[in-house]
Amino acid sequence: MTQQSSLGVAVIGTGRMGADHVRRINEVTSGAHVAAVVDLDTDRAEAVAAEVGGCAAFADPAEALAAPGVDAVLVASPGPAHEAALLTAFAHDLPVLCEKPLTPDTAAALRLLEAEQRLGHRRVQVGFMRRYDREYVRLKALLDSGDLGRPLMLHNRHRNPENPPGFTSAMAINDSVAHEMDITRWLLGQEVTAVTVLRPRPSGNAPEGLADPQLVVLETDGGALSDVEIYLNARYGYQVQAEAVCEHGTARIGDGHDLLVTAAGRWGGTVTPGYLERFEDAYDREVQAWVDATRRGEVTGPGIWDGYAVAAICEAAVRSQTEGGRVEVHLVDRPAFYGA
Amino acid sequence: MTQQSSLGVAVIGTGRMGADHVRRINEVTSGAHVAAVVDLDTDRAEAVAAEVGGCAAFADPAEALAAPGVDAVLVASPGPAHEAALLTAFAHDLPVLCEKPLTPDTAAALRLLEAEQRLGHRRVQVGFMRRYDREYVRLKALLDSGDLGRPLMLHNRHRNPENPPGFTSAMAINDSVAHEMDITRWLLGQEVTAVTVLRPRPSGNAPEGLADPQLVVLETDGGALSDVEIYLNARYGYQVQAEAVCEHGTARIGDGHDLLVTAAGRWGGTVTPGYLERFEDAYDREVQAWVDATRRGEVTGPGIWDGYAVAAICEAAVRSQTEGGRVEVHLVDRPAFYGA
Amino acid sequence: MTQQSSLGVAVIGTGRMGADHVRRINEVTSGAHVAAVVDLDTDRAEAVAAEVGGCAAFADPAEALAAPGVDAVLVASPGPAHEAALLTAFAHDLPVLCEKPLTPDTAAALRLLEAEQRLGHRRVQVGFMRRYDREYVRLKALLDSGDLGRPLMLHNRHRNPENPPGFTSAMAINDSVAHEMDITRWLLGQEVTAVTVLRPRPSGNAPEGLADPQLVVLETDGGALSDVEIYLNARYGYQVQAEAVCEHGTARIGDGHDLLVTAAGRWGGTVTPGYLERFEDAYDREVQAWVDATRRGEVTGPGIWDGYAVAAICEAAVRSQTEGGRVEVHLVDRPAFYGA
Amino acid sequence: MTQQSSLGVAVIGTGRMGADHVRRINEVTSGAHVAAVVDLDTDRAEAVAAEVGGCAAFADPAEALAAPGVDAVLVASPGPAHEAALLTAFAHDLPVLCEKPLTPDTAAALRLLEAEQRLGHRRVQVGFMRRYDREYVRLKALLDSGDLGRPLMLHNRHRNPENPPGFTSAMAINDSVAHEMDITRWLLGQEVTAVTVLRPRPSGNAPEGLADPQLVVLETDGGALSDVEIYLNARYGYQVQAEAVCEHGTARIGDGHDLLVTAAGRWGGTVTPGYLERFEDAYDREVQAWVDATRRGEVTGPGIWDGYAVAAICEAAVRSQTEGGRVEVHLVDRPAFYGA
Repeated sequence: MTQQSSLGVAVIGTGRMGADHVRRINEVTSGAHVAAVVDLDTDRAEAVAAEVGGCAAFADPAEALAAPGVDAVLVASPGPAHEAALLTAFAHDLPVLCEKPLTPDTAAALRLLEAEQRLGHRRVQVGFMRRYDREYVRLKALLDSGDLGRPLMLHNRHRNPENPPGFTSAMAINDSVAHEMDITRWLLGQEVTAVTVLRPRPSGNAPEGLADPQLVVLETDGGALSDVEIYLNARYGYQVQAEAVCEHGTARIGDGHDLLVTAAGRWGGTVTPGYLERFEDAYDREVQAWVDATRRGEVTGPGIWDGYAVAAICEAAVRSQTEGGRVEVHLVDRPAFYGA
Repeated sequence: MTQQSSLGVAVIGTGRMGADHVRRINEVTSGAHVAAVVDLDTDRAEAVAAEVGGCAAFADPAEALAAPGVDAVLVASPGPAHEAALLTAFAHDLPVLCEKPLTPDTAAALRLLEAEQRLGHRRVQVGFMRRYDREYVRLKALLDSGDLGRPLMLHNRHRNPENPPGFTSAMAINDSVAHEMDITRWLLGQEVTAVTVLRPRPSGNAPEGLADPQLVVLETDGGALSDVEIYLNARYGYQVQAEAVCEHGTARIGDGHDLLVTAAGRWGGTVTPGYLERFEDAYDREVQAWVDATRRGEVTGPGIWDGYAVAAICEAAVRSQTEGGRVEVHLVDRPAFYGA
Repeated sequence: MTQQSSLGVAVIGTGRMGADHVRRINEVTSGAHVAAVVDLDTDRAEAVAAEVGGCAAFADPAEALAAPGVDAVLVASPGPAHEAALLTAFAHDLPVLCEKPLTPDTAAALRLLEAEQRLGHRRVQVGFMRRYDREYVRLKALLDSGDLGRPLMLHNRHRNPENPPGFTSAMAINDSVAHEMDITRWLLGQEVTAVTVLRPRPSGNAPEGLADPQLVVLETDGGALSDVEIYLNARYGYQVQAEAVCEHGTARIGDGHDLLVTAAGRWGGTVTPGYLERFEDAYDREVQAWVDATRRGEVTGPGIWDGYAVAAICEAAVRSQTEGGRVEVHLVDRPAFYGA
Repeated sequence: MTQQSSLGVAVIGTGRMGADHVRRINEVTSGAHVAAVVDLDTDRAEAVAAEVGGCAAFADPAEALAAPGVDAVLVASPGPAHEAALLTAFAHDLPVLCEKPLTPDTAAALRLLEAEQRLGHRRVQVGFMRRYDREYVRLKALLDSGDLGRPLMLHNRHRNPENPPGFTSAMAINDSVAHEMDITRWLLGQEVTAVTVLRPRPSGNAPEGLADPQLVVLETDGGALSDVEIYLNARYGYQVQAEAVCEHGTARIGDGHDLLVTAAGRWGGTVTPGYLERFEDAYDREVQAWVDATRRGEVTGPGIWDGYAVAAICEAAVRSQTEGGRVEVHLVDRPAFYGA
C-alpha cells in the first residue's frame, strides 16, 4: 500500500468519549490518524496507543503537543482541564476540537475568548455535535428557508435511561440541557436572555435529592420561547426530540422518523429524490467494508455466486415478461468454493 | 502532515456511479485513495483525475491495473465490460469491487465463476449495496434472530420518479428488480426457484411500449413468496420498501422511519439505548468536518463564543434551579472577531 | 318520555354477528329498534329478546316477517339460510340488510338476482361493511377525485390472530378474501376478470392441512392488479391494510394512522380543519352518554364542580397573562356532594 | 313505523354549536329527539324547528322548559346566559347538558354549585367533551392503569387555523386553554394550584394586540406540571395533541395516529384484536345508513349484484387454489336494473 498525507491528531483524554474519538479517527474519518494519545492514567493511554499502533502515549498534554507528527488536537479530558489544554494548543498554534463543556464556568470561558483573540485567528471548534446531526441540520435548513415563517417556540425533549453515577441537579443543566441551550441559539440564530427552571415532584426512578425531571424555559432576544424537558431517569432509552413552532407551520425531529412538517393542511415528510440519496449511506458503508476487508486480506460481502444467481433469475423473469406465465429458475450446483 | 499507509484503488468507469465512487473514496472512506481512473472517454478520465490530484488517468484498464500504487480495483464501467475487467484483475490477482450487474448474462457469469475458482481464492465483491443499508441490515438481523418465526412472504416496493432514457421493459427487470432478487436471497438465505411477471395496464406516465409498473413474484426453495412492485415512473420520488411477513409478526422498512415491527399485539420500533448510538452519525460528521476544515486551513462550526454563551446560560439556569424564578442572562458584547 | 316513529327491525340469526347487530340497533342506531328476533335456537332467541325488552322471539323467519311492527329485516343467519330468508322478505316486500356472503354459490345468487328484478325494485343491501369504514371511504374519495391519476395496483393485507375453528383453505377465500374482492371492485369501479391463488409453505401456526398464508392476485377489466395477502394465523392481532398505487402517487390505509398519501415528493396526511371535525366523535359520544345516563335516571361526566374549578384557573391565568409571573389558584373546599 | 319511547330534549341556543347538537340528536343519537328549540333570534329558532319537524320554537327558555314533551335540556347559548338557564332547569328539576364554559366567572359558578346542592341531587353535566374523545379516553385508561408509573408532566398543543373574530388574549385562555385545564385535572385526577402564562413575541399571523401564541404552565397539587401551547393562528388546521411523561414511559395522542406509547425500549401502538373492534365504526355507519335510506324509502349501498359478483370470484379463486394457475372469472351481463 502506498503512503498518503494525513492529519496527525493528538487526543487528550482517553475516557469513554476520548476512546470513541480515537476509534473514529482511525476507522471512520478520511484523511486523519491518531498521532498521540494523552491521559494522566498512563496505563490507559498506553493501552489505547497499543491498540491503534504507531502512536505515542503521553501523560502530559504539553509534551504530546510538542511531539513530531502532531498537526491538531482533540480535547476530550474532563471540563476543568480544558482551559490549560487549549492554552497549550494556542502556544503551538494548533487547531483544536474541544469537547463540551468548553469550560465549567464563564470566567474561564472569557479568558479563552481573550486568548484566542490574542492569537489573531480562530483555532477552536467546540464539540456541540448536535449541529452535525442530520435531523437538526434539516430542521435548521427548513427554519432558515423561511418557508414556515418566523420560529415562535421550540419544544425540546431530552430523555436518558438513567442518570450517570454521582449526577447532581446542576449537572442535569450543565451537562445535559447545555445541548439544548446551544441548539436553541443555533437553530434560531438568537441569544438567550432569560431562563426559568421548574421542578415538578421528582420521579420515583430518581435517586433521593436529584431534581428529575425538570422543565427549563429559555427566552431569546428574538422574542422566542424554548422549553426543555430534561428527564434523566426515563428508563426506556435515550430520546432527543425537538419541535419548532413557526408562524405558518410546525416541524419535528427525533421521533423515529424523518423531519416531520405540518403546514398548509398536511403533516408529513419528504421522499428522497433518487437512489444515490436514498442509499448514500449504504454505498459509503459498502466501500468502507470492502476497503477494510481488503486491507485485512479478506473478501466479504456478496460475490460472483450471487452475481450469477441474480443473472439467472433475471433471465427467467424476462422470459416470463415476454412469454407470460411462471418460469422456473435452474442454477448450476453451488461450488463448495463459495460456501454453503 | 504525515504520511500513512493507504489502499490505492483504480476506478474503472467514470460515469455517474464511477465518479461518485471516486469522490467517496477520496472524501469519505478511511484508509483508501484513488490511485488511477480509467475511462474510454479519456477527457472525462483526465478531468476526474485532475480533480482528485496525484492520480493517473488511463483509457485501458490493463494498463491501469499494471500501474504502480494500484492495490485494488473498483469496476463501475457498463455491464458488458465487466468480464474483461475482472479477468484482467484476476491476472494481477487484485481484489475487486464490481458494480452490479456482475455480467449481462449467465454465460459470462459462469465463466467468471470458473475463473475465480481457478485463481484459488475469492477476489470479487459484487456491488449489491442494499446489503449494507442500515434498514436492510436491521431487518436481516431480526429475521435471523428467529424472534418472529420463519419468514413466509416478502412484499417489496421499488419506485423511481422516472425511467432513465432508453429504458426497456427488460431493463426494469435486469437493472431494477435485480436488487430485490438479491435482497430476497440474502434476507431469506434461500435461492429463487421460479418467477412470474405480471403486467397491468401501463401507467400514462410511462413512454409508449414500456411495461410499467410490473409485479414480479419470486418463489424460493424454502417455500417463501417474494412479490416485487417495480414502478419506474411514479413521479413522486425514489422509494424502496420491504415488508417481511413471518409466522408470528411482520417487519417493515423504507417508510420514512426506522424498522417497524408488528408482533404480540403491538406495532412500533425501538428507542436508541444511549447518546453514542443516537448521535453516532453526528459525531462522525463532526470530526470529519473538523478534519476537512483543518486540512483546508479553516475553522468552521461552533467556537469559543458559543462555549462561553452556553456557560453563561447554565450559570443562570442553576441559579433559577436553586433559588426559583426567572433569571436573566447577561453576555459580554460579542467581539467582531467572532462574526455577527 | 314521549313517543317517536321508529323503524322496527326483525333480526334473523342471533349468533355473534346477529347479537351484535341487535345491541347496535338498540343502543347506537338513531331511528330504529329491534321489533323481532329469529333463531332456530329458540332459547337463544328468547334470551336476546328478553334483554332487549318489548320484542318478540321467533323460530321461523316467515312468522317473524309477518308480525306487526316489523318494517325491515336484517339477515345474520348462516349463509345457506340467506336465500330462503330473502325470498320471504321479498314476499312481504320488506327492505333487507343481508350479511355477507349473500349466498354460498353463484347459482343461488343468480336466483336472487332474478327474484329481486321480478319484485320490480331493489330491496337488498349486502353487508360489505368495509364500504362504510372511514378509512376506505377516504381512500375511495381520493381515488375518485383523480388527484393521483388512474389506479394501477392495489396491495391488500388481511391478517387475523387465528383461524376460526373448522376453517378450511376455501373458507379463507370465501369468508375472508371475499371482503377484498368486493373492496377491489368498489374502490376501482371495475369488475374482476381473473384470479390466481399462490400458496407458500404454510406457517407453523396453521393447523395441518390449512393453506395459510395465501397470496391472491386479482385482475380487473380496467387492467389493474389487486394482490391480497390473507394470513389467518398471524397471532399478533387483526390487521387490514390497503395501498393503492396510482399513476402519480400512492395512498395507504390501515396502518394505525389516517390515510397516508405519497405524492409530489412528500408523504403524509391531512390535518383536520376545525374542532367540529376533530371532535365530531367526542361530541357524538358525549351526547349519547348524557342521553343514556338521563334515561337511566343518572348523572355522569363532568359537573358543576369541574366548571367551577376551570373558571377559577382561568381567572388566575388571565391575571398572570396581564400582570406577569406565577399566580396561585385557590378553590373553595370541594363539597362532599360532588364526591372525592 | 311504530312508536318508541324517546327523550325529548329542549336545545337552548341555535348558533353554530346549538344547531350542530340539534342535528346530532335527531340524526345520530339513539333514544332522543329534539322537542323544543330556543333562541332570542326567533327567526333562527323557527328555521331550525322547521328543519327538524314536529318541534316547537321558543324565544324564552322558561316557556320552553315548561312545554309538554320536554324531558331534558341542552344549553348551548352564550356563557353569560348559562346561569339563568340552569336555574330555570333546576326549577323544573330537568337534567341538563351545559356547554362550556359553565359560567364566565367563579362567582356565578359558586352560585350554581350552591343551587344544585339545594336541589339535593346532581342534574348538570358540563360540556367538556374531550373526556369523550377516544384518544383521551385511551390515554386516561393508560395513566390510570399505572403501567407507566406516576405522571410527571403533560405537554399539550392546541392549534387553530385562525382566531374567531373579536377574540382577545383573555378569550384564548377562557375559551381555548379551558379545555386543557379540565383535561389536565381529569387525566391526572389532581387540582391545579398555580398557573403562569408566558407570551413570546406574537406571530405575524395574529391581529395587532392579540397575544398569540402563548405558553401556559399549570402546577397541580400532585406535584405535576402541565404546559399548554395555545396558538390560535397556526393557519394549517386544527390540531390538539397531548403527551404524558410518566415515570417509566411516555404516551402521546393527537398525532394523526393512535395512542403512541414509548416504554421499555420501544415506541408504538396496539393492533386491534379482532374485526368487531377494527370495524366497529363501519358496522355502526352501515346500519345507520341502511336505516336512514330505508326510512327515506331508498336502497343504497352494495346490492345483490355485488353479492353475486363476489360469489363468482370466490368460485374461481377456490378453483385456482385447488388446481393451481390462473382462472378466469365470467359474469352474466349486468342487468340495467342494477345500474351501470
